[in-house]
Amino acid sequence: MLRSIATVSIAGTLPEKLAAIAAAGFDGVEIFENDLLYFPGKPAEIRQRAQDLGLAITLYQPFRDFEGAPRQLMAGNLERARRKFALMHELGCDRMLLCSNVSPDSSAQFELQVADLALLAELAQQQEIVVAYEALAWGQHVKRYRQAWERVRAVNSPALGLALDSFHILALGDSLDQLDDIPLEKIAFLQLADAPWLNMDVIEWSRHFRCFPGQGALPLVDFSAALLRKGYRGPWSLEVFNDGFRAAPSTLTAQDGWRSLLWLEEQAQAVLGQIEADLFSSASLPQRQAIEFLEFAVNAAEADELARWLGQLGFSHYGDHRSKRVALYQNGGVKVVLNQQPDSFAAAYREQHGASLCSVACRSDHPQALLQRARDFAYPVYQGQVGPNEHEIPALCAPDDSLIYLLGEQTSDVYHDDFHVQPAADVLGPQLGGIDHLALAMPAGALDNWVMFLRSVLGMQADVEQVLPDPYGLVRSKALHSHCYGIRLPLNVSQSAGTLSARTVETYHGSGLQHVAFATADIFQAVAAARQNGVALLAISDNYYEDLAARFGLDNAFVARLAQHHVLYDRDPAGGELLHVYTQPFAGGCFFFELLERRGGYNQYGAANGAARLAAMRQG
Amino acid sequence: MLRSIATVSIAGTLPEKLAAIAAAGFDGVEIFENDLLYFPGKPAEIRQRAQDLGLAITLYQPFRDFEGAPRQLMAGNLERARRKFALMHELGCDRMLLCSNVSPDSSAQFELQVADLALLAELAQQQEIVVAYEALAWGQHVKRYRQAWERVRAVNSPALGLALDSFHILALGDSLDQLDDIPLEKIAFLQLADAPWLNMDVIEWSRHFRCFPGQGALPLVDFSAALLRKGYRGPWSLEVFNDGFRAAPSTLTAQDGWRSLLWLEEQAQAVLGQIEADLFSSASLPQRQAIEFLEFAVNAAEADELARWLGQLGFSHYGDHRSKRVALYQNGGVKVVLNQQPDSFAAAYREQHGASLCSVACRSDHPQALLQRARDFAYPVYQGQVGPNEHEIPALCAPDDSLIYLLGEQTSDVYHDDFHVQPAADVLGPQLGGIDHLALAMPAGALDNWVMFLRSVLGMQADVEQVLPDPYGLVRSKALHSHCYGIRLPLNVSQSAGTLSARTVETYHGSGLQHVAFATADIFQAVAAARQNGVALLAISDNYYEDLAARFGLDNAFVARLAQHHVLYDRDPAGGELLHVYTQPFAGGCFFFELLERRGGYNQYGAANGAARLAAMRQG
Repeated sequence: MLRSIATVSIAGTLPEKLAAIAAAGFDGVEIFENDLLYFPGKPAEIRQRAQDLGLAITLYQPFRDFEGAPRQLMAGNLERARRKFALMHELGCDRMLLCSNVSPDSSAQFELQVADLALLAELAQQQEIVVAYEALAWGQHVKRYRQAWERVRAVNSPALGLALDSFHILALGDSLDQLDDIPLEKIAFLQLADAPWLNMDVIEWSRHFRCFPGQGALPLVDFSAALLRKGYRGPWSLEVFNDGFRAAPSTLTAQDGWRSLLWLEEQAQAVLGQIEADLFSSASLPQRQAIEFLEFAVNAAEADELARWLGQLGFSHYGDHRSKRVALYQNGGVKVVLNQQPDSFAAAYREQHGASLCSVACRSDHPQALLQRARDFAYPVYQGQVGPNEHEIPALCAPDDSLIYLLGEQTSDVYHDDFHVQPAADVLGPQLGGIDHLALAMPAGALDNWVMFLRSVLGMQADVEQVLPDPYGLVRSKALHSHCYGIRLPLNVSQSAGTLSARTVETYHGSGLQHVAFATADIFQAVAAARQNGVALLAISDNYYEDLAARFGLDNAFVARLAQHHVLYDRDPAGGELLHVYTQPFAGGCFFFELLERRGGYNQYGAANGAARLAAMRQG
Repeated sequence: MLRSIATVSIAGTLPEKLAAIAAAGFDGVEIFENDLLYFPGKPAEIRQRAQDLGLAITLYQPFRDFEGAPRQLMAGNLERARRKFALMHELGCDRMLLCSNVSPDSSAQFELQVADLALLAELAQQQEIVVAYEALAWGQHVKRYRQAWERVRAVNSPALGLALDSFHILALGDSLDQLDDIPLEKIAFLQLADAPWLNMDVIEWSRHFRCFPGQGALPLVDFSAALLRKGYRGPWSLEVFNDGFRAAPSTLTAQDGWRSLLWLEEQAQAVLGQIEADLFSSASLPQRQAIEFLEFAVNAAEADELARWLGQLGFSHYGDHRSKRVALYQNGGVKVVLNQQPDSFAAAYREQHGASLCSVACRSDHPQALLQRARDFAYPVYQGQVGPNEHEIPALCAPDDSLIYLLGEQTSDVYHDDFHVQPAADVLGPQLGGIDHLALAMPAGALDNWVMFLRSVLGMQADVEQVLPDPYGLVRSKALHSHCYGIRLPLNVSQSAGTLSARTVETYHGSGLQHVAFATADIFQAVAAARQNGVALLAISDNYYEDLAARFGLDNAFVARLAQHHVLYDRDPAGGELLHVYTQPFAGGCFFFELLERRGGYNQYGAANGAARLAAMRQG
């Protein structure tokens, strides 16, 4: 597949964009007209640069407001086309995008539009250029690809074909199930963009919120599978208008774009029942994934303090590493590692971020597949130093440069070989079943990078984004979860500097752990035990409980029990329930802990209680 | 008038909000339920706090999804109401907002809705509470205030009235011209919010983009005038959901809210033909306003360099201040002051912001009125130190703490009395007619503060906001202009750290001058003269001119002349034209200069060329 991207999709000047696009591995590039207009050099220089970088110029775009324009404008419009064709020759590009006319002054008359398009096609054919005609979702008379096709068919010129753009087609609720009567050679270009579902004007949605395939919620996979089935083998070209991408480092954005095309091709081929052998190694996803342990980077004082917290939370000291200053703690299904080894990855991490989560170990039935997927998607992998006879655990580098260790399902060797394991001590406290989720705070611009990483390498799926009101601004929270919910990661971003999320990012100098949620089978037992151990829980206002009773029609005894334990409550429409408490933040650090109990298949994160928690953290 | 505001309109915890609202001068406050739910104390404590702060609790809000709800929910809903009424008694509040039901499960049956509302009204009447029923613009069956009125009339209870909310009414295109048959006593509450016109889903628009009256574009003045005419004398209460306000310092936001109500009352009374004497001094706006001079805060080296630049731009050294290290330069209708006086306002300003514009002198036919307006609207005014026999010029403090000096129309005395004026030297260079506009860069959160200041004190009007693509992110530009366009101020903000606007703000540590545009009568003469003097103009790509010819159908000779002079070109739909050039940025500083010629009534700022300029500045 020839992978291409429009220059408008990323930030920078035109030379910067071309360099980033080539470095990311693309084969081709669409030149967005304005990028060329502002480039202080000849079009031929861009042709040469692209050639030097190994990039084909797949498209020149856009040409606008042509067919059916008022008659007095036609001579000028044809002259405009002639000039653009001449420029395209200088550029070494033989394909031009024509958007359907959006002008209210344009004619609704089919024959007139066809006559105009025929004129343009004739001119193009003389110049050995192909015009790819695209139905803009907000075109005045041509909004849908079938309408564009009717006109292309009527013109019947080899110099006029269809441009199919996933956003314009899917945003209107169309699909590619009406391709049968469109000859393959009439598909002159393919543009791909995803987007979150937003209830807004389609122009604004298109111009500001497009994203790469896999980062949004449009049915891109079915769309692409339909084209593969049809036999389309032309370029797959990304065309994304996104306010964040316009401002993000262009190399990172371009890399994610390239990954999104690889991911999309994999997914589309899977829909067709086969992944082509030449695509990439296509290591299929593990069936089971869960978090095996968390590793915190700490200094000696922080290690003592965190160990004390863990003790209060019912963790016992499970062992010490044979060669490193690394201690292991356990409570039921949860293991936590405190790493204060000098000259280690953890030490460097702590130096940069303070006391923080520096790695997560992921347990799965096929860790090598995850490692291979990371390589396929061009993510860096990590290999640390190990002592003699110690386990060598492969690791992925997450987008914030923390690590994700990859373990198989038999993990006991790792502990027994690498650690002096101690007999389990009798520890009082809450009994934890596992790590329910990790909430990460990150800069707003990093969210899409994380989504691409988690979707492509770990195969995680995204839930609908929530908006949480912090007393000092809004926080957007997008949760991803692995197949079967073995791993859950709510990702929080905020553009308001005063919110807890933004302050967490500021403290860490980047992304980092906001809290760890531990699953319990009995929240009231867990809370009682935790409090008995001296865990400082976040106090929740009596007014919250007063409202809760009115809101959910709960019985008074149950509400009183919730209030007594500071337990927050949520219920989903299917009757699933979440009962959860939060600790105070870890002293001097940013992160805190949550204890929760899910009942009846509740699958969310208590976003309805987000405002209560955030307010309580500021008024505690 | 009793001025009130909903706690949801500003940032912070409930106690912080109450303190900010009282400090801003409000008389009352609507308690937004969630703020109370998260407050870790009894409702009675809030009652006491409000009382101590002199704030009446004007409304408890919102109560939702009541009328026409499925029958099996009715008992629970009534219980919910009972609990809220009890809470309101603790709070000392006798008025509750009821929003029209948004549930798709709610009944469309008028009689059923009325019966439910009658039940609630009966309960409320027993509790001596009034329910104010509001038609949400996205209510399931009740969207418009006339629909709400039909139900209120049918219930016919003293405990049920209408809540009129300007956003819900105006967003749907309704107006208050159908108030006649609604008895005054049935208007139980008035909520006010403005908003920019946005083509988007009304819920999202309402929840994220409301603003204070005068900051948006809804016809709030006519709306309020209709209520005054009707005889409404109840509270005017702001209810604003705004992502920026949620994150901004609550004291500043609350102050602007208070100002907006004062402004709105003034404007509404003016529509009715009289400003009530007890409103405030209501100094009416001057008819004529223009910029008289600009003052830059500089050190000695910067003064030399800027003087050299001014010389190249055709300014002559007009004089030196009698007692201070302040020099005056002039070119035609433009005067510029370079202030390097130690221990002065300018010196302190330079210390904080670097070489920058520290004050603007505004010439008008009634400067005292502007000073009085600033005092009325609770903006600080400034009085500097003057030497013996020197003019004492009053000044306003702009929202970024720069100064706006207020001069009358006879200004020659100021120069002759305070300066050793020199005979005009023969200086070659462009001939400047005046200061066309000042473009300011500011943090995104400051824009609304500026809009409120410029609208209320200087009476300026806002144009529609433009979005300019910088190579490193989007920039929003909102221009304000005085009556008759004597002063024009495009205000630029960007949330993307890499844009020129954001970097300007970073360099200044706050708002500041991005560029000064000088008006010329003949742009080609001015450019030729400037270049002959060695002014370094921003070079514009040949590709820009190639496109310009195609886009506007301009003749080749004219386009060649534009290109030769690096002149950018824009044309408005009415045929008005803008011809303009930019200088390179002032060495080491942030700001630069523009020379422009307006033809045929062109009234904008060449936003279409913004991207070309910004790209050229990054690729120069």
